[in-house]
Amino acid sequence: MNAVIDRQEKPSVGSVEKKYHTFAEPPDELLLESGARLGPITIAYETFGSLSAKKDNAVLVAHAFSGDSHLAGRYTSDNEDDKPGWWEFMVGPGKGIDTDRYFVICANILGSCMGSTGPSSLNPATGQPYGLDFPMVTIGDMVETQKRLIDHLGIEKLVAVIGGSVGGMQVLEWCVRYPQMVRAAVPVATTMRHSALAIAFNEIARQAIMADPNWNGGDYYNGPGPDLGLAVARMVGHVTYLSDEAMRRKFGRRLQDKRDFSFGFGADFQVESYLRHQGSKFVRRFDANSLLYITRAADYFDLIERNPAGTRPTEHGTETKYLVISYSSDWLYPTYQAKELVKHLKRQGCDVSFCEIEADCGHDAFLIPDVRLEKLLRGFLNGISRN
Amino acid sequence: MNAVIDRQEKPSVGSVEKKYHTFAEPPDELLLESGARLGPITIAYETFGSLSAKKDNAVLVAHAFSGDSHLAGRYTSDNEDDKPGWWEFMVGPGKGIDTDRYFVICANILGSCMGSTGPSSLNPATGQPYGLDFPMVTIGDMVETQKRLIDHLGIEKLVAVIGGSVGGMQVLEWCVRYPQMVRAAVPVATTMRHSALAIAFNEIARQAIMADPNWNGGDYYNGPGPDLGLAVARMVGHVTYLSDEAMRRKFGRRLQDKRDFSFGFGADFQVESYLRHQGSKFVRRFDANSLLYITRAADYFDLIERNPAGTRPTEHGTETKYLVISYSSDWLYPTYQAKELVKHLKRQGCDVSFCEIEADCGHDAFLIPDVRLEKLLRGFLNGISRN
Repeated sequence: MNAVIDRQEKPSVGSVEKKYHTFAEPPDELLLESGARLGPITIAYETFGSLSAKKDNAVLVAHAFSGDSHLAGRYTSDNEDDKPGWWEFMVGPGKGIDTDRYFVICANILGSCMGSTGPSSLNPATGQPYGLDFPMVTIGDMVETQKRLIDHLGIEKLVAVIGGSVGGMQVLEWCVRYPQMVRAAVPVATTMRHSALAIAFNEIARQAIMADPNWNGGDYYNGPGPDLGLAVARMVGHVTYLSDEAMRRKFGRRLQDKRDFSFGFGADFQVESYLRHQGSKFVRRFDANSLLYITRAADYFDLIERNPAGTRPTEHGTETKYLVISYSSDWLYPTYQAKELVKHLKRQGCDVSFCEIEADCGHDAFLIPDVRLEKLLRGFLNGISRN
Repeated sequence: MNAVIDRQEKPSVGSVEKKYHTFAEPPDELLLESGARLGPITIAYETFGSLSAKKDNAVLVAHAFSGDSHLAGRYTSDNEDDKPGWWEFMVGPGKGIDTDRYFVICANILGSCMGSTGPSSLNPATGQPYGLDFPMVTIGDMVETQKRLIDHLGIEKLVAVIGGSVGGMQVLEWCVRYPQMVRAAVPVATTMRHSALAIAFNEIARQAIMADPNWNGGDYYNGPGPDLGLAVARMVGHVTYLSDEAMRRKFGRRLQDKRDFSFGFGADFQVESYLRHQGSKFVRRFDANSLLYITRAADYFDLIERNPAGTRPTEHGTETKYLVISYSSDWLYPTYQAKELVKHLKRQGCDVSFCEIEADCGHDAFLIPDVRLEKLLRGFLNGISRN
C-alpha cells in the first residue's frame, strides 16, 4: 500500500540506512484543508521505549520544519556518519522524556522529504514526482495524518504532545482538533500565528528558491536541483534561528582562517563561512519544494482566526494541561507571542503553566542540550503521570 | 577628464534628466585602502543653498547604501516621475537643515551606480564595464573622494557632516581622517562596526545575487542582469530596515486583494506583496555589483580595530562636537551599539550628545518625516553656528 517514494531514500546520514517504520493511507483517503484530496500517503515514524499493555504511556513529539522522525539514538553503533537523533539530549532512558517510562513516537510531517509523502514523492497519476502538483498542506493536515498513525497504533489517549517551533504549532493544532486525546501539551518556542516578520523571512527563502532557474517551476527531480537558491534560503533560516547576542558570541567579527581582509568576495568573516557551510550542508539533505510547502503551512497557521477556508476549529478543550515555553532571545517567535498564547488559553479556561527560559542562543535554543528544559519536561510529565 | 560611465545614465526617475554636477580625479590618482589604485574617478554631487563668501556655511550630508546625490527638491516642476530627494523633509528653506543658511552638499558614494564611479563604470584599461575588476573600496575610500570634492569647492571647514546608516559610517570616518575640517558630526542610526548579524544579512544578500546565473561572475552589462537575485537581496534589506512592530502595524497578517488563502505560492499576504514590489522596484534603479561592493565596505568598516590593512587612523579629534542619534526599534544597528559609540568617543575626550528617538519603524526611521529629528538637527546646528 505504500507509495514508492523517490528522494525519500536520499540518505541524510552518509551511508547509514534509515530504519523508520512507515504507515500508509490508501489513495484519496485524506481530505485536505484546502479541499483537495491526497493519497496514497506514507508517514515515516520511529518509536522509542515500549508501549504499555494499557497503551497509556505514549508521548508524541512533533518535529520542527526541517526535522525528521529520527528523534534520538543511532541506527548503528559503528558508523561515524550515523548522527544521533535531533533531540538526543532530551529523549532516552532516564532523560527528560524517559523512554524507560514512555513510549515516544515521532513522525515525519506530511509535505517533508524524510520518508513521508511530500512534493518529491511519486504522483500516482503520472508516475513522476509531484513537484508543484502536490497539494498545499496545512499544519492541520499534518496533525490529521499523525492522528491516523496514533489510531493505527491503537492509542486512544496520549500522555503528551510535545514540540518546538513548527512542531509547537502541531501541538496546538492537536489540542483544538483532538483535545480529548491529549492529556498534556508542551508547545516550545512557537507562536499562535506568524507575525509579518516571520512570514517575510519565509517569503524571502521561498523567493530565493524560486529565483533559481534550476527550480524550474518545481519540476527538477530528473535534473539538477535549485541548490544555490536552497542554500540561500537556508542561510536566511539560520539567521532567524540565532540571535544578535548568539552571533556576537559565536562569531563576532572574527576572520575565517586569515589575518587580513581579502578585499574580495570570499568568506572573510567566520559568520559568512558558517552560513555558506550551513547552506551547502542543507542542500545535501533537504528538498527545496518541501521547504516551500512547509514554510507556507507555517505562514497559514493561525490558531485564533479561523483560516479563510474555515475548516479548522479554534476552541481548545479544557482537560489538557499546558506547559508553554519560550526563550528570552528568540526573535522569530518572541516571548511576547508566547504570552499572547498563554492569555488565549487562559481565556478559554485552560490549565496553563508558562516558563520563559533565559538563554542567549535564540530560537534554536530548544535543540541545544540544556538541563533546565530537561528538568522542566521531566517534572511536568511526572505531574501528568501522577494524576 | 570624466570617464564615460555607462548605467549611470540609467534614469532612476522615469524620464527625468538627472542634474547632478560631477567632479573628476585623473587616472591612478587615488590610492585605495586595499593598496590598489583607481582612476579616473567621477563623483556625482548636488548642492543646495548658497556657499557664503567666507565659505564657512557648508554642510556635507552622506547618503545611505542605496542612496544618491539627490538629497532634496525636484529636478522639474511638471513631471510626476520626478520624485523629490531622499531627505526632502529635512533639507530645504526653513527646514531642519536650512538651505537659507547652509550650503548643503551631497555626493554619490564611490562604488555606487548613481553618477559616481563604480563597478558598472567603464574600465579605461579595457573599455568595458569593470564588473569584478573594480577594486574593493572602503568607507575610508568613499570619504577620501568626498574630501577631494570639498577641497575642490574651496571649503576648508565644514559646519557639519551628517548621515544615517552607511552614511553615518562616513560621518565617523570623516572625524578620524579630517577632524580639523569637521566642526560637528551627526551619525544617525549607525554603528562603529557591523555585528555578526549585520554581516550575515549582507552576506545573504550577496549570495542571493551571486547565486543568480545571470550575475555571471559580475560580467553581465552586455546581457540580462541578475535581476531575480538582486530582488531577493533587496527583500532581505527591507526586512532589516523595518522592525517586528513596524511590520505588524504595517501589514500584520492581512491578505493582499483576496479574502481567502490561495493554497498556492502567490503573494497571499500583504507583506509578501510588499517585499516582491520592493524587490522589483530596486532592480530597475540599482546595480547588483554596486550592492556587493557597498555592503562589503560596510562590513569591513571598523572604527575601533584598525582594519587589517592598517591604513586607517582610529583616533578622533576632540574639537568636533558630536550628536549621536539612534532609534529604539532599529535592530540592524540597535541603540546598544550607539551607546558603545558614545562611550568610545567620550573615552577620547570628545564632546558628545546622544539621543535615542522612540519610534517603532525600525532602522529606516531617519528617512521618514519626523519633526523630532528635524528639531534635533536644527537646534544642534544652531548651537554650532553660534559658536
